[in-house]
Amino acid sequence: MRTAAYTGNHSIEISEAETPAPGPGEVQIAVAFTGLCGTDLHILHGNMDARVTTPLTFGHEMSGTIAALGDGVTGWTAGDAVTVMPLVWDDTCPACLAGNNHICQNLVFVGIDSPGSLQEYWNVPANLLVAVPSDLSLRTAALAEPVAVAVHDVRRSELKKGDKVVVLGGGPIGVLIASVARSEGAIVAVSEPEPERRAQIERLGFEAIDPRTVDATEWVTAWTGGAGADVVFEVSGAPAAVLVATALAKVRGTLVIVAIHPTPREIDLQRVFWRELRILGARVYQRTDFERAIELLQDGTIPVDEVISRVVPLEQITEGVDDLENGRALKVLVELGAGE
Amino acid sequence: MRTAAYTGNHSIEISEAETPAPGPGEVQIAVAFTGLCGTDLHILHGNMDARVTTPLTFGHEMSGTIAALGDGVTGWTAGDAVTVMPLVWDDTCPACLAGNNHICQNLVFVGIDSPGSLQEYWNVPANLLVAVPSDLSLRTAALAEPVAVAVHDVRRSELKKGDKVVVLGGGPIGVLIASVARSEGAIVAVSEPEPERRAQIERLGFEAIDPRTVDATEWVTAWTGGAGADVVFEVSGAPAAVLVATALAKVRGTLVIVAIHPTPREIDLQRVFWRELRILGARVYQRTDFERAIELLQDGTIPVDEVISRVVPLEQITEGVDDLENGRALKVLVELGAGE
Repeated sequence: MRTAAYTGNHSIEISEAETPAPGPGEVQIAVAFTGLCGTDLHILHGNMDARVTTPLTFGHEMSGTIAALGDGVTGWTAGDAVTVMPLVWDDTCPACLAGNNHICQNLVFVGIDSPGSLQEYWNVPANLLVAVPSDLSLRTAALAEPVAVAVHDVRRSELKKGDKVVVLGGGPIGVLIASVARSEGAIVAVSEPEPERRAQIERLGFEAIDPRTVDATEWVTAWTGGAGADVVFEVSGAPAAVLVATALAKVRGTLVIVAIHPTPREIDLQRVFWRELRILGARVYQRTDFERAIELLQDGTIPVDEVISRVVPLEQITEGVDDLENGRALKVLVELGAGE
Repeated sequence: MRTAAYTGNHSIEISEAETPAPGPGEVQIAVAFTGLCGTDLHILHGNMDARVTTPLTFGHEMSGTIAALGDGVTGWTAGDAVTVMPLVWDDTCPACLAGNNHICQNLVFVGIDSPGSLQEYWNVPANLLVAVPSDLSLRTAALAEPVAVAVHDVRRSELKKGDKVVVLGGGPIGVLIASVARSEGAIVAVSEPEPERRAQIERLGFEAIDPRTVDATEWVTAWTGGAGADVVFEVSGAPAAVLVATALAKVRGTLVIVAIHPTPREIDLQRVFWRELRILGARVYQRTDFERAIELLQDGTIPVDEVISRVVPLEQITEGVDDLENGRALKVLVELGAGE
C-alpha cells in the first residue's frame, strides 16, 4: 500500500509498505480521504520535532470503509463507512478519573503520537470508530474531525440563542466555529485580515471585519449597542488578537482559547478583572461532539463546498500543503481512495 | 469634623470641615473605623490620579452608627450599627440590565469616585447600608468590605468541599480568601515570599510556600497526587505569579484573577488550551457577599485578630500607611471614633 510520512526537515516521503493485518481489537480501514490541518503543517514545519518520531505517517482527519476486523471486534461489519476519533486515553490519570478523558494527562493523539491515516490501509482500535451514515459522502465525512473541534469549542462557550459572537481568525476552524455558532442561534462576526478569506466569510453570510483597517473594539461596541460581545473565539494564534480579545467581550462575557499559542502571550488581565470575564481553554472533542458533527454535516449546517478548497491525490500532497501554507485553501483533502 | 484627604503628590491632609446634613434618601453615619487597603495605597502613590479628583476624602472599608436620617429614609434608626457596600450603579447600562449591576459599566466606587469614609460624619445613600448585628464589634465590622471581596472571589471560583486550593499572595485579601475557602471545606496552600507573612499563614493553619526557594509547580503537583490544584487565586499582582498560575491548575481547573494587573501580563495560553483551564475575573461583591461576610465575621471564620495588625487614630494615618507599604501590617484600621 502507499503511505505518506513526515521524514523531518520539512519533507514528506511517499512510499510503498506492507499492509499489516489488524491486531486484536483493531479494525483495518480502507482510507478514502484524509484532510490536512494546521497541526499537520506544524509537524511539517518541524515545530513538533520534539514530540513526534520520524518517519511519521501523519493525518487524523479522515473517512473510509472497514476492510477487515481484528479478533474480538464486534458491532462492525466490513464495508461500514466510518471516521475516527483519534484519541487514546489511559483511563487512570487524574484527568481521566475526573471524567475528562478527552484531555487525559497522557493522551495519545493518533496521527501525531502514533501512525495516522495518510496510508491506504490503517489499523485503529475499534473503540475509536464513529459511524458515517449512508446519506453522507465519504468526501464530506472527512470533515467530521474539524467540525467536532468546532462543536466542542461552541459547546464549551455555552453561547445562547441571540448571542453576538466574534471569531478572531477566519481559517477553516474559524469558519466552522462561525457556522456551528450560527446553527445555535448566534449572530456571528469574523475578524480576518486576508481579503479573499473575508470575501468568502461574507458569502457565507457572516459579518467580516478587517482588523488591519477597522478598530475592532469600536466596531464590536457599536454592533452590540455598547455591551460588547457575548462570546469571543480566539482562533488566530496571533499575539495582537489576544490583546484585543478581552476588549471585545461584554461584562461577564466569555473568551474561548482555540488557537495554539506556542509562547506566552500578553493579555489584559485588568480587563479580565474589571469586566469579570471568563476565559476557557477548549481542546479536541468528546464523542458527543463527533456525533453532533456528523449531524451538522448531514443537515447542511456546514458549508462543505466552501470549506473543502481542493482534493488532491496522494502523489500531489505537497501541492495541497503549499496551498494551505499560502492561504490559498481553507481545507485540502488528500484522496487515498483505498477499497474502491 | 475632622477629615483626611489625598491631596496629590503622595500627601494626606487632615483638616476640619463643616458637617453637612444628610440629603434626601441619605443617612449620616458617625464613622467608627475605616480600614486602609491596597487601593488606597494606589491612590496615595498617584497611580489613580487620572481617575480621582483631589482633594479626595478616601476610605471605603468602614463601620459606624447612624447619626441622622435624611428625608424619605425608612427602615433605619439613629444609633443603628452599620457598614456600607460602597457601590453606586446606574441601573441602565447593558451590564446592569443583564443583572450584573455590581460591575455596572458606569460604576461609582464610593471612596474613589466620590467622597469616602475618612471623615467623622459621612453621608451616603441609604440603600448602600448593610446592618451590623449587635454581637459584632464595630472594630470587627470594619472588615466586612474586604471579607466580602474574599467571599465574592471564593463564590466565583465555585470551589467544592475537599478541593485543593492555592492562593498566590499572602496579603490581607490572600489570607481572607484562604480563610473563606477553608470555611467552604477547601484545603488551602498560600504562596508568599515574605517570611513574616509566611509564618503568620502557617500559624493560621495553612500550608505556606516560599516561591523564591520552592518550585511551586513541583510542590503543587506532589501535593495533589499529580493532578494539579482545583482552584488557584492570583492575588499577588506579580507578573511571575501569572506565568506560574496556569502551571499549578489541574485539567479543567480554575484560575481566579483577583489582583490588579495595571499593564498586560504574559500568560501561558498553551497551558490554558492544553488543560482546558478556566480563568475568571472577580471584582468587588454583590449584596449576598456582604451579608455572608457579616456571618463569617460573627461565626469566627475570619481570623480578625491576625488580620488587623494595628489601629491608629486619624492623626497617625501616615504611620499606618507606612506600615502597610513596608509589609509590616496586613490590615490597618483608622479609628475615627465619631458618635461615641
